[in-house]
Amino acid sequence: MKAHVFHGPGHSAWEEVPDPHVKDPTDAVVRVGAVTVCGTDLHILKGDVPEVRPGTVLGHEAVGEIVEVGGDVRTVRPGDRVLVSCISACGRCRYCRESMYGQCLGGGGWILGHTIDGTQAEYVRVPFADLSVHPLPATVTSEDAVLLADIFPTAYEVGVLNGRVRPGDTVVVVGAGPVGLAAVATARLFAPERIVAVDVDPSRLRAAREFGADAVADARETPGQLVADLTDGLGADVTIEAVGVPETFEMCARMVRPGGHVANVGVHGGPATLHLEDLWIRNVTITTGLVDTRTTPTLLRMAAAGRLPTTRLVTHTFPLDRMEEAYDVFARAADTGALKVVLGGPRREVAVPATG
Amino acid sequence: MKAHVFHGPGHSAWEEVPDPHVKDPTDAVVRVGAVTVCGTDLHILKGDVPEVRPGTVLGHEAVGEIVEVGGDVRTVRPGDRVLVSCISACGRCRYCRESMYGQCLGGGGWILGHTIDGTQAEYVRVPFADLSVHPLPATVTSEDAVLLADIFPTAYEVGVLNGRVRPGDTVVVVGAGPVGLAAVATARLFAPERIVAVDVDPSRLRAAREFGADAVADARETPGQLVADLTDGLGADVTIEAVGVPETFEMCARMVRPGGHVANVGVHGGPATLHLEDLWIRNVTITTGLVDTRTTPTLLRMAAAGRLPTTRLVTHTFPLDRMEEAYDVFARAADTGALKVVLGGPRREVAVPATG
Amino acid sequence: MKAHVFHGPGHSAWEEVPDPHVKDPTDAVVRVGAVTVCGTDLHILKGDVPEVRPGTVLGHEAVGEIVEVGGDVRTVRPGDRVLVSCISACGRCRYCRESMYGQCLGGGGWILGHTIDGTQAEYVRVPFADLSVHPLPATVTSEDAVLLADIFPTAYEVGVLNGRVRPGDTVVVVGAGPVGLAAVATARLFAPERIVAVDVDPSRLRAAREFGADAVADARETPGQLVADLTDGLGADVTIEAVGVPETFEMCARMVRPGGHVANVGVHGGPATLHLEDLWIRNVTITTGLVDTRTTPTLLRMAAAGRLPTTRLVTHTFPLDRMEEAYDVFARAADTGALKVVLGGPRREVAVPATG
Amino acid sequence: MKAHVFHGPGHSAWEEVPDPHVKDPTDAVVRVGAVTVCGTDLHILKGDVPEVRPGTVLGHEAVGEIVEVGGDVRTVRPGDRVLVSCISACGRCRYCRESMYGQCLGGGGWILGHTIDGTQAEYVRVPFADLSVHPLPATVTSEDAVLLADIFPTAYEVGVLNGRVRPGDTVVVVGAGPVGLAAVATARLFAPERIVAVDVDPSRLRAAREFGADAVADARETPGQLVADLTDGLGADVTIEAVGVPETFEMCARMVRPGGHVANVGVHGGPATLHLEDLWIRNVTITTGLVDTRTTPTLLRMAAAGRLPTTRLVTHTFPLDRMEEAYDVFARAADTGALKVVLGGPRREVAVPATG
Repeated sequence: MKAHVFHGPGHSAWEEVPDPHVKDPTDAVVRVGAVTVCGTDLHILKGDVPEVRPGTVLGHEAVGEIVEVGGDVRTVRPGDRVLVSCISACGRCRYCRESMYGQCLGGGGWILGHTIDGTQAEYVRVPFADLSVHPLPATVTSEDAVLLADIFPTAYEVGVLNGRVRPGDTVVVVGAGPVGLAAVATARLFAPERIVAVDVDPSRLRAAREFGADAVADARETPGQLVADLTDGLGADVTIEAVGVPETFEMCARMVRPGGHVANVGVHGGPATLHLEDLWIRNVTITTGLVDTRTTPTLLRMAAAGRLPTTRLVTHTFPLDRMEEAYDVFARAADTGALKVVLGGPRREVAVPATG
Repeated sequence: MKAHVFHGPGHSAWEEVPDPHVKDPTDAVVRVGAVTVCGTDLHILKGDVPEVRPGTVLGHEAVGEIVEVGGDVRTVRPGDRVLVSCISACGRCRYCRESMYGQCLGGGGWILGHTIDGTQAEYVRVPFADLSVHPLPATVTSEDAVLLADIFPTAYEVGVLNGRVRPGDTVVVVGAGPVGLAAVATARLFAPERIVAVDVDPSRLRAAREFGADAVADARETPGQLVADLTDGLGADVTIEAVGVPETFEMCARMVRPGGHVANVGVHGGPATLHLEDLWIRNVTITTGLVDTRTTPTLLRMAAAGRLPTTRLVTHTFPLDRMEEAYDVFARAADTGALKVVLGGPRREVAVPATG
Repeated sequence: MKAHVFHGPGHSAWEEVPDPHVKDPTDAVVRVGAVTVCGTDLHILKGDVPEVRPGTVLGHEAVGEIVEVGGDVRTVRPGDRVLVSCISACGRCRYCRESMYGQCLGGGGWILGHTIDGTQAEYVRVPFADLSVHPLPATVTSEDAVLLADIFPTAYEVGVLNGRVRPGDTVVVVGAGPVGLAAVATARLFAPERIVAVDVDPSRLRAAREFGADAVADARETPGQLVADLTDGLGADVTIEAVGVPETFEMCARMVRPGGHVANVGVHGGPATLHLEDLWIRNVTITTGLVDTRTTPTLLRMAAAGRLPTTRLVTHTFPLDRMEEAYDVFARAADTGALKVVLGGPRREVAVPATG
Repeated sequence: MKAHVFHGPGHSAWEEVPDPHVKDPTDAVVRVGAVTVCGTDLHILKGDVPEVRPGTVLGHEAVGEIVEVGGDVRTVRPGDRVLVSCISACGRCRYCRESMYGQCLGGGGWILGHTIDGTQAEYVRVPFADLSVHPLPATVTSEDAVLLADIFPTAYEVGVLNGRVRPGDTVVVVGAGPVGLAAVATARLFAPERIVAVDVDPSRLRAAREFGADAVADARETPGQLVADLTDGLGADVTIEAVGVPETFEMCARMVRPGGHVANVGVHGGPATLHLEDLWIRNVTITTGLVDTRTTPTLLRMAAAGRLPTTRLVTHTFPLDRMEEAYDVFARAADTGALKVVLGGPRREVAVPATG
């Protein structure tokens, strides 16, 4: 089959590799129908994630059709259309027992496109299939569903649920890229009084308004002043960091009210300064986290009911074999206006090769 | 009356000042029977808390007898023996309505010995008396009770409850001073599997064992290794910072397991480094906070039932008029072995002057 | 002034009574601008609430203007336009400290129109004003606001919050009277997958759809079958009882899934049968409760932001002095189609008499 | 092998049956070292649980050694000493994903000695072994461990955790049989102010004191009065029903304070009367539930640390082949004083037959 293979920092190619097959009785092999590119994939290509070995197929988000299952897979079978979650779960370790699949100690967690071959391929082997793929309702398109592989559960679990958004809250989302926009959209599920989106890019701030932000602010001006004005000087109930640099984290810590929550969603490459001299007395809760995808079944129901604006995130679509072009468009988002690029999807289903 | 008055950094005296009286209908005046000195008082004397104006009577912890109440005080009356909480609460603002009294917006919060005259005096005026003093059961001595004014609720609320200690947990308390020891004692209320105390002072580590620590570690050696060994390499469920310097906070953030809680109790004068490059993926919750004293009634019931080792914290007692000597003993804790010093208390009740 | 006075079962009149005045320093007197009639008032008139003594002014919901305050009222002053909550709160007792104002032990709770004179009058004395009235944003009309005195917080706190409605849930509301409709509307705040309303009255079921129900069922047919069909046979995540008779409570207990919540909102006059032989094994949580009105400030913010369909509940308005006619229309709801009747309100403000 | 086989109401025998073997790749076969008899087994023998078919081996609690595992068992292997939980868990269904294993929809739940052959045998096949057996620390004896198969997690999860016992609480446990005593012992883990045990049998009330009850009451006298006296007339914070008849459930509902929790643990054969005419206004939470055994790993750690008084519950021990005698002693508890009977255990390990 063809797949997008990492060849060390700065190098990757859409090329021929061996077809994957079931190795363990809990494996499934999925024919990929739609796949997307994540900001994390760009980090890998830059060499920021050294545990990804050259030769690995990239990608951790996909929708496709089950073509083969191991002998102990009970909940899906060949022919089923499924979402492949970015997180695999052994289902047996102490973390999986608490639905904290992202921290799986039994061989799961974030493994696809990271420690094993991933989804940017015509086929992908998914370990622990019962807990790592989700059957798709017919009414959810592949293009919508693929956004539930990572970005929507990440924004919802790590941002909105960790941040404990409640009806009537003032919520600030710093960073209006794809995850930040998904945070705006899923914060809406809890009927906050208002959502303020902060970014430096006017087009992303416009997008934030479309996703449900009530107010927007340029990060280089004084978003803290806007938030103070809106909240009688008190600060936001919840601030969600969706960028991944120290400045935006520190901005979130400054803008939260006493008793409020700072939910970090961004992937950070270096430390931030925590102003404990101010914060020690302010009853603030700060959370971090990798997504567990424990809410994916719920989000799928919401998507099927038309309550999630998934499609709006998709700005570009490509056939699967134009992977390198898709990466380029996604990497130059400031120029191309790309939010999420989807490959495959409804516009082009890959042909079915013989498997096994 | 006599009181301990702040005269600017480095200066204070036990001297004559005017008697306090009821000013607002919700005030009470309390004749002080027992009072203690807090580490925060030492910070004030050093000049670290500039909002304390010269001329202010210090102290925010006391036990005493009500001698006068305003016209709208409903729950206590002259003659009642009460605990004066370190936190006053207006009872009307949005924070008080959520029992977050430490963040009171209506004139309360930490005001005694801070923005108004405090408890290191023969008499003290306590605003918002109904929510700021607690009637004492006869079976609780003043020496025990005065430790419930600040130190025990601080350790319990900001350390143990914010840290969500649960049965079976591994809990690490960094800092075995008075607040750290109270954290060890109140963590015990939730039946953790083990409590590890970390400090640099062998005598404090011995005290930690007496208060219920199952293991102790020298902070300058490798406490993280001990914690890893005890937890199959995973880390502690809860780490409680009870010192207030960047190094101990960062140690707490390093020693916590994925999914665990870091509860900051220490009062910090400067920032710490938050290693988001490690933490972003680890599902960690970090909390800060000033005590609300919302659990004081519960702790009083526990003390009356003999379930809190309050008295063990009291290493030195003095009559009230030897305030300056008590400060000296407390300030030189490394030499004197002082944990908490109590003035007044059961051994000497101050005489009753005419009031009003 | 004129007021609606209870004269024993079956008897009441709009008649002249003495003007109320401030008695305690925490009292306020409010000139009533809008008031409504509650189903509970009908129960009182029938004699079902014997602790209401003849001579009492009825009513526990109002909007009006502060005309006089006691010396210890801090948060409102004459001229302020306020919502009078159905629950008064001393703010000092153990229940008030936990925001459980409905259970106040210090003289509050449901007292207006129950143990003291109520709001169906030109003026009303409100004890504990700081915690029992809420200043109104200018953008919220009196007609909207008066529905936040009881019915909306009751539906939201006792139904939706006690029932723990979550995004993606299936919620069943049994009873589509005013409280049930408010439960439908406030359940929407948590983005359930679907809300099913059950009643016997087709016009109320139509109203339920307008308030946000996705499906409706006639209570005399097989609502349990509909719920089972919608949930793969599992049952509802949350069932909310908003009628107050044994049959509807038992229906709620039957229709909930294992692990689900039954939130009782209805006022019951007799016992129900609890089928523990079925329920013991099903991990069901059942809650009951009188409203605390602790969410009223949040709901006011939601109303000001246009996020609550309060006005739609008001089917009839009257001037204040046509109280008896309003009762009649409300009591004959099946004929008149009445949901809520509002007296006074924007269409007629009572004249200002001299007070004090 | 030999096993205790049900032959219809009133009939059972310790007799020869075929050895069990691995059927599914997630199965394990365990050689039984210790087993106990549950009150539920007596119900089955009486014919109260009609879904148990004649020919079924009874028993759902055991400790033993793994002798065979299927190809997809990852966490245990032959030779491991394990606890066999009363609940099996598929690990894949929506309930298992929420750790609500007792409600498993994928073939687990309470199946041993119920819908498939159970543990009162020399060998038992355990489906879904990774989630249904627990490796035992060497320091926990089989006699202690077998009480963690059902009775301790039931008391802890369904009684203490569902009831939300908190430090300082007044807890009432109605029924001082084995589960009630385990509820007393595990309520102690949360440092309540006091635990009151209620029963009709003086010897069980004595046992309750040994397990940590601070006060006891005869159920036929006025336990409600005692509880009222201890709580200023308010009622208990938590009441735990551990009998399973309507009277004791109703007693629990009467004795709880407004805002308190009633946790039903008892297995009920008929309905109770729920006095909603009193309860609707009292903010009471009632929970029911089958154990999930999600806390078994935690309880095992507690037992290993010597913090659970498991052994005290064992009043009689027998070799495995005296099963019928053990049933008799357990069934006549009022005469024999039996709490729990353990067969096998440290005093007699069954010989090792050839397997497979």
